[in-house]
Amino acid sequence: MVNSNSAVPVGVIGANGYTGQELLRILAGHGGIEVTFATSDSASGGQTVVSGLRLIPVAEAPVGEVALVFLCVPHGRAAEWVEVHGGHGLRIVDFSSDHRPGSGRESRAVYGLPELFRRAIVDAELVANPGCYPTGVILALKPLVDAGLIAPSRPVIIDAASGVTGAGRSAKRELLFAEVAGDYRAYSLGNTHRHLPEMQTVLCGVPLVFVPHLLPVARGILETIYVPLLPGLDAGAIRAAWRERYAGERCVTVFEDRAPALADVVGSDRVGLGVVRNQGIEDLATVVVALDNLGKGASGQAVQDMNLMLGFDEHRGLRC
Amino acid sequence: MVNSNSAVPVGVIGANGYTGQELLRILAGHGGIEVTFATSDSASGGQTVVSGLRLIPVAEAPVGEVALVFLCVPHGRAAEWVEVHGGHGLRIVDFSSDHRPGSGRESRAVYGLPELFRRAIVDAELVANPGCYPTGVILALKPLVDAGLIAPSRPVIIDAASGVTGAGRSAKRELLFAEVAGDYRAYSLGNTHRHLPEMQTVLCGVPLVFVPHLLPVARGILETIYVPLLPGLDAGAIRAAWRERYAGERCVTVFEDRAPALADVVGSDRVGLGVVRNQGIEDLATVVVALDNLGKGASGQAVQDMNLMLGFDEHRGLRC
Amino acid sequence: MVNSNSAVPVGVIGANGYTGQELLRILAGHGGIEVTFATSDSASGGQTVVSGLRLIPVAEAPVGEVALVFLCVPHGRAAEWVEVHGGHGLRIVDFSSDHRPGSGRESRAVYGLPELFRRAIVDAELVANPGCYPTGVILALKPLVDAGLIAPSRPVIIDAASGVTGAGRSAKRELLFAEVAGDYRAYSLGNTHRHLPEMQTVLCGVPLVFVPHLLPVARGILETIYVPLLPGLDAGAIRAAWRERYAGERCVTVFEDRAPALADVVGSDRVGLGVVRNQGIEDLATVVVALDNLGKGASGQAVQDMNLMLGFDEHRGLRC
Amino acid sequence: MVNSNSAVPVGVIGANGYTGQELLRILAGHGGIEVTFATSDSASGGQTVVSGLRLIPVAEAPVGEVALVFLCVPHGRAAEWVEVHGGHGLRIVDFSSDHRPGSGRESRAVYGLPELFRRAIVDAELVANPGCYPTGVILALKPLVDAGLIAPSRPVIIDAASGVTGAGRSAKRELLFAEVAGDYRAYSLGNTHRHLPEMQTVLCGVPLVFVPHLLPVARGILETIYVPLLPGLDAGAIRAAWRERYAGERCVTVFEDRAPALADVVGSDRVGLGVVRNQGIEDLATVVVALDNLGKGASGQAVQDMNLMLGFDEHRGLRC
Repeated sequence: MVNSNSAVPVGVIGANGYTGQELLRILAGHGGIEVTFATSDSASGGQTVVSGLRLIPVAEAPVGEVALVFLCVPHGRAAEWVEVHGGHGLRIVDFSSDHRPGSGRESRAVYGLPELFRRAIVDAELVANPGCYPTGVILALKPLVDAGLIAPSRPVIIDAASGVTGAGRSAKRELLFAEVAGDYRAYSLGNTHRHLPEMQTVLCGVPLVFVPHLLPVARGILETIYVPLLPGLDAGAIRAAWRERYAGERCVTVFEDRAPALADVVGSDRVGLGVVRNQGIEDLATVVVALDNLGKGASGQAVQDMNLMLGFDEHRGLRC
Repeated sequence: MVNSNSAVPVGVIGANGYTGQELLRILAGHGGIEVTFATSDSASGGQTVVSGLRLIPVAEAPVGEVALVFLCVPHGRAAEWVEVHGGHGLRIVDFSSDHRPGSGRESRAVYGLPELFRRAIVDAELVANPGCYPTGVILALKPLVDAGLIAPSRPVIIDAASGVTGAGRSAKRELLFAEVAGDYRAYSLGNTHRHLPEMQTVLCGVPLVFVPHLLPVARGILETIYVPLLPGLDAGAIRAAWRERYAGERCVTVFEDRAPALADVVGSDRVGLGVVRNQGIEDLATVVVALDNLGKGASGQAVQDMNLMLGFDEHRGLRC
Repeated sequence: MVNSNSAVPVGVIGANGYTGQELLRILAGHGGIEVTFATSDSASGGQTVVSGLRLIPVAEAPVGEVALVFLCVPHGRAAEWVEVHGGHGLRIVDFSSDHRPGSGRESRAVYGLPELFRRAIVDAELVANPGCYPTGVILALKPLVDAGLIAPSRPVIIDAASGVTGAGRSAKRELLFAEVAGDYRAYSLGNTHRHLPEMQTVLCGVPLVFVPHLLPVARGILETIYVPLLPGLDAGAIRAAWRERYAGERCVTVFEDRAPALADVVGSDRVGLGVVRNQGIEDLATVVVALDNLGKGASGQAVQDMNLMLGFDEHRGLRC
Repeated sequence: MVNSNSAVPVGVIGANGYTGQELLRILAGHGGIEVTFATSDSASGGQTVVSGLRLIPVAEAPVGEVALVFLCVPHGRAAEWVEVHGGHGLRIVDFSSDHRPGSGRESRAVYGLPELFRRAIVDAELVANPGCYPTGVILALKPLVDAGLIAPSRPVIIDAASGVTGAGRSAKRELLFAEVAGDYRAYSLGNTHRHLPEMQTVLCGVPLVFVPHLLPVARGILETIYVPLLPGLDAGAIRAAWRERYAGERCVTVFEDRAPALADVVGSDRVGLGVVRNQGIEDLATVVVALDNLGKGASGQAVQDMNLMLGFDEHRGLRC
């Protein structure tokens, strides 16, 4: 499908939100694709996002003219769109949770986490782009689960903090500048966040406690994870499992002597992983994961998926 | 010592830092005391802080003229100052960690947490004002320890986040606006924070994992605490223990149906406490504690101590 | 109307916006009044704002039970409300622009700027609380206009910057945290801001260019004003005019050796005024005005008006 | 000097400040050069900035091995360094003000503003990279001065606001997060800013009043400029002069229907220009200029200069 002489046509459904805009920014520097259309029902007509591109209503999207569509619409509406337009050879990267593990529709899609499911993504028609929180949690914990390092009797505790673009671009009072600046708060308390089934399914049922917080920053996720270890193991075993799994991975950075911070990853398509042992509490390691929720947590990862699906170099256009 | 007709003279050593300034702000609205002197070696002379008050060098402080001194100097220097000026009837509230539990010098001082040690504070000559992080952790956990609710075999995990005034007002590159804005990071990883002995000592050795983070806000602390419970107990038992212990306490607010956030406490001298049960993980409750690190976490608490020591209404001048 | 033994009953229409909340915060510390009701159509029922107070729909407000009503509703709706409820002895402080100078309805109200119209406010039934931008501009320029210091042939240029609470608490995309943080922008360009007639009317037609900007802070206004002076005059003449006019005024601070900044006034009910001469351009002075848009720019000023209207000490409860 | 088969070696003196870091970030994506060394006296040894690069002390810089040096050291020290190392064929881009117009040393250097001095830059040995504020002011006003649009009898007023990276990365109390967040203030009042001679010299002595302010953002400059016009002219004449001068310029964007904001330029190497007429004050146009102080205001412009000096496409590696 990739013609070496010409750009591959792709389309963006829902281009005026934060993930849609970041996607257009990354695609603008890709060089191998052409964005044929970008839709936005709320901003169609007047507004353009990236130079030369007019926003059109979703109903007018010339879906038949593109090789791949990025679907950046709210949860629920994505499944409806795929129901209508999927299954006719159109490749789709769905940003919503509608086809992710734990959604009940996961059998129709491949989970778009390249470091774990690279081969299946290459041939997938429908890719479910992972959630921002799950991307970090799964990349940190899956190698530990697979290597059998985690003590089974106690939950893994994930204390997570995200910038406000993770909550979308709809006008809501609780996301106003004057509400968020100077504040910090936990939300979805009680293990009720909708990303939890996605993490638990991919992590094979490891018990999790997940507590997200809203940070007064525009972008970035930091996840501080408390991992109970089997006797005799320590932080070194975790780092070794990561190194083995992620050798050669350009979008995953294992930190050696310190933990990653938001400043290390914001604006990038990387995940940073770090781990330390806790003095006096040897059987509980503290893992720190950092990523940009709009980069590796959404649009960067979607482009990584697209590169695999369309036969490009996997990291083309990415800020890894 | 309190004369109903006239203000009680007090002094402030180290009045130009964030805690010193907040202290002067609270004292300005107290009405029953008069700030006789305020010192600052770095800013002495030219600069004044609160209307009418000149900053003088610490060596020139007329200590003999006041009934009580607030000691807002760095850790280490406080003990030296007390060595010279203490023991002659001068009442002292020390903001540093030099005389706190776990310091090795705790026998010389009373720990200034009024909700737990009110009676001893009244007659104390030297009060060790609690650390900002420990104030929240101890107020949340001490009633649970005393009531025997915590499962003994697993550590209590404290994931804490603080605004930058908690790190003091010295010029450090890592605290510059352009470094902190947009960032969020863990620090003192590995259970190495200097507040840990203070918490552990007052909490009678309950095993703790404490991971502080630096928030891009000026002030406020949020502590998300993961408490392993004995079989059969749940979040309700924790709330009941708090209600019993803190009935009538004006500086402690137990939240019923939601967790406190920074926005609920910044600018106040209150601590907010909330707790929720975790769906699917019944034996681990999530506790959320919020306080202003400059309010109940430092200067507000110091004034609460002063009120007890000088015979004022305990909450006079406080924003509870 | 003021009974020395009991609190005066007042009501707040529109208590859930930023000005309404700040008003309730100030009134809570006043001591001489009692807030009998607080309305909010959007948040009526469930939400309370200040301890013990339930928000009710505006239609249910027991207007007859109070001595004074604060009207914190959008422009346009205030005039409608006054049409229905005014004129029967009820005292009203209207936060909107509906009855301000330049509105066409100014003859029905007294302009609530105490430093200039104190006597008229005392007996007024309807007070038009000044706009946030005009409060600073008028307090800075009116003494200069009255003293005839301003060169008539050139406009006075007002470059103003405001925190986002000045734009209200309605959910708008352009006020979301992720839109405002890290940004700074001019708006209402072309001398089209709706506060302009208010300023021009009170300043007797002095030609003005007014360019407001949106600051990434929650609260505070800084106005940098370029004042053309008559030959022979300089910054000293401006400072002298202010000193004469504002001698004894507790809510106006004339800075001597530096200009005020937001940090000097946020959280207060004061205006700070400063002026400097420009090296090489002697006939143009730079005036800097700082105030809190929610303090002296709205709710603080409204309470100052109320104090005058109800016979309290003018500065009772204020943070001057 | 440019070899089509291999990268051109360049060096960075002072690579650990904000401009040095941004420079390394841009150079990393350039493709045609290789950073042979990067120095930092304060951070030499342990710290690396961009992957694979160790910071060395300036005294150890192998200056003889590179074709061009970027000099990112404080004002004063740059002239000393050039005194020692210049004049032997080494090409230098000096970020400091030491060789800029108005410095007294301007005859030794070419002023590195490509849109105005492109031809001279190509062959220059020493280029004085323009200041961040002057870049915006000069690009906005020079075409107006050259076209004779500005009324001569009144000053042009420049009300400017900059993010804190413009003040450098040295640890200063007034730049701490807790001092800057929530604040906004004017500085260098009285027409005393050190960038003023640079602007005035290039603008041929047009009288200027320049008032900079410190914004609570990390990066970005917005300059609101009040331009007195000759009779009969209006905003359209300004826009026409810009269009003529900047036709084909990729780093200058003339806005048509609105003014540029920080959000339009932060992270880019562009300048945005906009202008509006003021209703009722026809002879004074309001010009708005936006740029990233680290992009077109410093490191982006330096790379643009380097591209010209080394024979690359002028915009290679830039985010225009």
